[in-house]
Amino acid sequence: MASTMMALVKTEHKRGAELREVPKPVVGPNDVLIKVKASTVCGTDLHIYEWNEWAEERLGRRIPQTMGHEFSGIVAEVGSQVKRVQPGDFVSAETHIPCTKCVQCLTGQMHICSQLTILGVDTNGSFAEFVSVPELVVWKNDPKIPYHVAAAQEPLGNSVYATLVEPVHAKSVLIYGDGPTGLFAAGVAKVSGASRIYLVGMSPMRLEIGKKMGADLVLNAAERKTEERIMDETHGVGVDVVLDMVGRQSVLDEGLKLVRKGGRYSAFGLPDGRLSVDMNNGIIFKGLRLYGINGRIMYETWLQVSNLLASGRLDITPVITHLMPLQRFSEGFDLISQAEPQAGKIAFVFE
Amino acid sequence: MASTMMALVKTEHKRGAELREVPKPVVGPNDVLIKVKASTVCGTDLHIYEWNEWAEERLGRRIPQTMGHEFSGIVAEVGSQVKRVQPGDFVSAETHIPCTKCVQCLTGQMHICSQLTILGVDTNGSFAEFVSVPELVVWKNDPKIPYHVAAAQEPLGNSVYATLVEPVHAKSVLIYGDGPTGLFAAGVAKVSGASRIYLVGMSPMRLEIGKKMGADLVLNAAERKTEERIMDETHGVGVDVVLDMVGRQSVLDEGLKLVRKGGRYSAFGLPDGRLSVDMNNGIIFKGLRLYGINGRIMYETWLQVSNLLASGRLDITPVITHLMPLQRFSEGFDLISQAEPQAGKIAFVFE
Amino acid sequence: MASTMMALVKTEHKRGAELREVPKPVVGPNDVLIKVKASTVCGTDLHIYEWNEWAEERLGRRIPQTMGHEFSGIVAEVGSQVKRVQPGDFVSAETHIPCTKCVQCLTGQMHICSQLTILGVDTNGSFAEFVSVPELVVWKNDPKIPYHVAAAQEPLGNSVYATLVEPVHAKSVLIYGDGPTGLFAAGVAKVSGASRIYLVGMSPMRLEIGKKMGADLVLNAAERKTEERIMDETHGVGVDVVLDMVGRQSVLDEGLKLVRKGGRYSAFGLPDGRLSVDMNNGIIFKGLRLYGINGRIMYETWLQVSNLLASGRLDITPVITHLMPLQRFSEGFDLISQAEPQAGKIAFVFE
Amino acid sequence: MASTMMALVKTEHKRGAELREVPKPVVGPNDVLIKVKASTVCGTDLHIYEWNEWAEERLGRRIPQTMGHEFSGIVAEVGSQVKRVQPGDFVSAETHIPCTKCVQCLTGQMHICSQLTILGVDTNGSFAEFVSVPELVVWKNDPKIPYHVAAAQEPLGNSVYATLVEPVHAKSVLIYGDGPTGLFAAGVAKVSGASRIYLVGMSPMRLEIGKKMGADLVLNAAERKTEERIMDETHGVGVDVVLDMVGRQSVLDEGLKLVRKGGRYSAFGLPDGRLSVDMNNGIIFKGLRLYGINGRIMYETWLQVSNLLASGRLDITPVITHLMPLQRFSEGFDLISQAEPQAGKIAFVFE
Repeated sequence: MASTMMALVKTEHKRGAELREVPKPVVGPNDVLIKVKASTVCGTDLHIYEWNEWAEERLGRRIPQTMGHEFSGIVAEVGSQVKRVQPGDFVSAETHIPCTKCVQCLTGQMHICSQLTILGVDTNGSFAEFVSVPELVVWKNDPKIPYHVAAAQEPLGNSVYATLVEPVHAKSVLIYGDGPTGLFAAGVAKVSGASRIYLVGMSPMRLEIGKKMGADLVLNAAERKTEERIMDETHGVGVDVVLDMVGRQSVLDEGLKLVRKGGRYSAFGLPDGRLSVDMNNGIIFKGLRLYGINGRIMYETWLQVSNLLASGRLDITPVITHLMPLQRFSEGFDLISQAEPQAGKIAFVFE
Repeated sequence: MASTMMALVKTEHKRGAELREVPKPVVGPNDVLIKVKASTVCGTDLHIYEWNEWAEERLGRRIPQTMGHEFSGIVAEVGSQVKRVQPGDFVSAETHIPCTKCVQCLTGQMHICSQLTILGVDTNGSFAEFVSVPELVVWKNDPKIPYHVAAAQEPLGNSVYATLVEPVHAKSVLIYGDGPTGLFAAGVAKVSGASRIYLVGMSPMRLEIGKKMGADLVLNAAERKTEERIMDETHGVGVDVVLDMVGRQSVLDEGLKLVRKGGRYSAFGLPDGRLSVDMNNGIIFKGLRLYGINGRIMYETWLQVSNLLASGRLDITPVITHLMPLQRFSEGFDLISQAEPQAGKIAFVFE
Repeated sequence: MASTMMALVKTEHKRGAELREVPKPVVGPNDVLIKVKASTVCGTDLHIYEWNEWAEERLGRRIPQTMGHEFSGIVAEVGSQVKRVQPGDFVSAETHIPCTKCVQCLTGQMHICSQLTILGVDTNGSFAEFVSVPELVVWKNDPKIPYHVAAAQEPLGNSVYATLVEPVHAKSVLIYGDGPTGLFAAGVAKVSGASRIYLVGMSPMRLEIGKKMGADLVLNAAERKTEERIMDETHGVGVDVVLDMVGRQSVLDEGLKLVRKGGRYSAFGLPDGRLSVDMNNGIIFKGLRLYGINGRIMYETWLQVSNLLASGRLDITPVITHLMPLQRFSEGFDLISQAEPQAGKIAFVFE
Repeated sequence: MASTMMALVKTEHKRGAELREVPKPVVGPNDVLIKVKASTVCGTDLHIYEWNEWAEERLGRRIPQTMGHEFSGIVAEVGSQVKRVQPGDFVSAETHIPCTKCVQCLTGQMHICSQLTILGVDTNGSFAEFVSVPELVVWKNDPKIPYHVAAAQEPLGNSVYATLVEPVHAKSVLIYGDGPTGLFAAGVAKVSGASRIYLVGMSPMRLEIGKKMGADLVLNAAERKTEERIMDETHGVGVDVVLDMVGRQSVLDEGLKLVRKGGRYSAFGLPDGRLSVDMNNGIIFKGLRLYGINGRIMYETWLQVSNLLASGRLDITPVITHLMPLQRFSEGFDLISQAEPQAGKIAFVFE
């Protein structure tokens, strides 16, 4: 094989990225080299592309570095100690690379390892012909799943975890956010028996996708009628479950009002800075259960994701609105960096 | 109102029952009198009609007694202390009447109260124009639910409890039994996100209903290929969940073989007499979780049932194959007392 | 019996209360009249006595009203419909009086009923010779439990619920608050297998009680060394569980720092107004489970409380520092209304 | 280092074993070589020593093989890929060696891996100067734990898992079996807040140890009064929890009678052959939750064990009645192979 490859590399401390020829990744004894077939674009990738404050702080001293972390591909080469996979296997990868030593890693919480390394943030990523990851995070895909869908299992896993951290069967679910994780969550809630699904977003185009994914009622946050409509729909009781896929003061305030006493709130979206919270009325008197959601349980969540996709129960393709070669990366980022995004999930596909 | 009514009464210690004019039920201060609109037939009713050993032992000294316990109707009159319902309300009722005093009643387990009274077994039942029940067990129905469907919420609740005692999302489920509770369970598993549903039964007609309810694969037990097919389907791993809606030695043996290590087994069907069990390979080495399922959690299960029905997520009408007036009771019982039943669920309907 | 009784009544819109002769409570058909043997003083009673803003808002239009809600006593009379208890029974009562009709009441969450009435806040209370409560909230006590201990089961129930909402066996527990609920929580954590218990408070006298209750290490918040000490004790990992029995910005901030990734936070103490929270680092990246704790689960928590007390496993008498007749009420309130309280729990006892 | 070592080796197809000089274990790239400091004797070791049917079937073609699997020791050497431990570390090891590839291994159920290898059964064991195990199963011990106690963490883990698969705080617990796992379970239940602990056994000497470990009442099964006494103690309700550390028809029958409706049954002891079970009255009508318990959850259970021991909460030394050098092995096995065992747990200790 050739010793170099094409990759989308963050090279400068400003907006943008560069398609470059870079060395192929080195494969250590416990590593797996994967020929990338599809790699989808995450909000984190957009932050790095746009180069916001967080990106400067987290990656400022690391660049140049290859971007991307959501992907699927075919195993090309395995290190000498690798046992679970072999060349030719169709795989994706968990992007939270755990230390295996800490209390969290030893007790089923590897996804929140105290020493996490994040693929494509702390390491070279998957917007490239090849990516190398430790065997520990490799997930074998069902061959029935298409490349671009398999690539999106990582963010879909966020939605599965956020939605199903407690069962939703026969419960009403209110989802904030019409980005891909919110849209995925609508689909997950639907196939998992939620009796009523409400989706609140900002983009008419994405809210339409939300309907296709299973939302019974979509609400445009700009119209500011959410509170009234939800209380009306639930006869003044409120919803059983709130999924906050946004992370914003207004969402936390409204969500804590609209969740019923004895309900559940999944907090996944990351706000900028601290938020103010009405502990008494929003949490304590409500007897609320609030879950911080980060990553995917390794590997319960991945198994759930695979089973839902491979069985045909869940179809996420309405959310993946654009497939394009990596060469058209700037077009892709432009679609989602606008005030009103013009895409759901974008997948870079490789031959 | 007239002081008598028509009722189907068990009168003699042999097969059969008699349509009779009987006094309307007395309404105590905590009781609710309900004009019955529909009442469905349960296996227990069939046992009483057929008058098997269990019936003689349990009801031998109680007859004559009105049969029936699964029903829906309109509140006609309420006792002086009744607060939750009023005349005109559309209701059904939990049939496990709890004592409210025992440890179980005090800790959320009223459905397995240590001093249970069962409607239509220990009391006069619902195959009648009117039935009287304590306010404690009355459940207000959503007006969107048809009478005969609302009547079947009680057995549907068994299936919901058996299926969802642990969540089934993204799990494979193997259901034994093509009677109404097995068929309902297929529907419940389907809407609750089970990734693959297998249904094993004896009646080709009922197995066809199973497909409509959501089973991905139906297997006729008579063909004795279940073990091979399931192991093939699950790549030798076995299923995540077994729902035993039958209660028979062959089912227990096969189910404990086919459930995977770390899986779950819900035991609902009642066998005649003791069974033999391979504790080591079937339960202990498997790290199995086995749940005895009886009744419905009061009232979590009822709320789940109502939400699934009222939201339109779950349609159980394919299972309710026959609607008929109470006058045709002997035809109804004949349909299901044959070696190969000719009906799913039968509903007696009232004007 | 005489038709009047002595009671401590809130009569004016200012600090204080008045010992008065008032009519004995009326006993409705579902009510239970109880001769009070002991009634303990809660922070809520203190707020009413001190007459803070909350008290004016909540009770301003209700007074004059008898104070008190934590009690034990002997049933003196029962209404015509009462079935679970009879005169002579030794009882206490849940103070959250539920409506029995709402979603919460129907699904095991009566303690957070959407239409709660609170004894001694919305009704006449237990600082009196007699108190009348609905049968629904009466709890039969084990005769082995002393009167003043039985009276304190209500706040002890808060601590049991806050501590054991998830099991604590083999876990480290950090408790904020050296008031009675914090001190009780130390005892509950100790007997329930917590491997290490840290208690943070403000009062040297109460922290000494904390040691007796089972705290392995007590820390005076004034010394501002909690963060350093806990991180040192836990080798930089943080604690498995935080119990916030205070409700204050500084506690929330510190607690969310000191709870480990994948840990649990019980929020019981009620802050004045909104708090600011670092959702990202405190909750989301931590994969935290945060529980709002209010009241006691009816009646799982009461059963746990009774079992722990009756079995002799848990001794809460070190916390109940003062027993006194109701006549000495002003002395009692003075002891706990100081900047540095001079008592743990105070019990008014009756002959 | 010398290339040979002393080991207790099963050499012949009959009762007994032989102390032999054997080659030191080879250390592969992922292996850890441990100098054994203490190794305790398990029922499995006794079966191999006695050479029962199971032993002939499982090990007949493997011998000669070194016996033993419960141990603690000091890391002597690590393979090239080992990262979590280093020479000098004080460690024990999980004896269930998982494949890391199967569904169970990927979803937090490694302890019931579908391809388990068992240390000392499928491999050379720990009754030797050195033992080699994969890094994957090494557990770092707290230095405060004595060698012989650390060696017994593996069976103690069985008891912790069986007892705490659901929390026991404020619950009554009935333990069958006065062997080491039953005695350990009494201690675990005591420190974890069980309100009442009953222990049923056969050996007066071991029942005395049971009292020291925390049993409130010990019952000799030979006196056949268990049922009467337990029903009397529980006012006819039955116990909340049964721990079956025996595995025998009489225990299953009695345990299913004595567990209360809505209770829990942990099945750990392995019966010879199939058992007969009253599914209806023992499991289904009771709404029982029955758990098959095998191994220890990796590594939640180990963390619980370590925390309980290191914190000083749990003292298991009363159960470890004999410490002796490996040279006195035949004396050790004789003590526990009698009809009435003359020891609790036996530990072979090494210099």
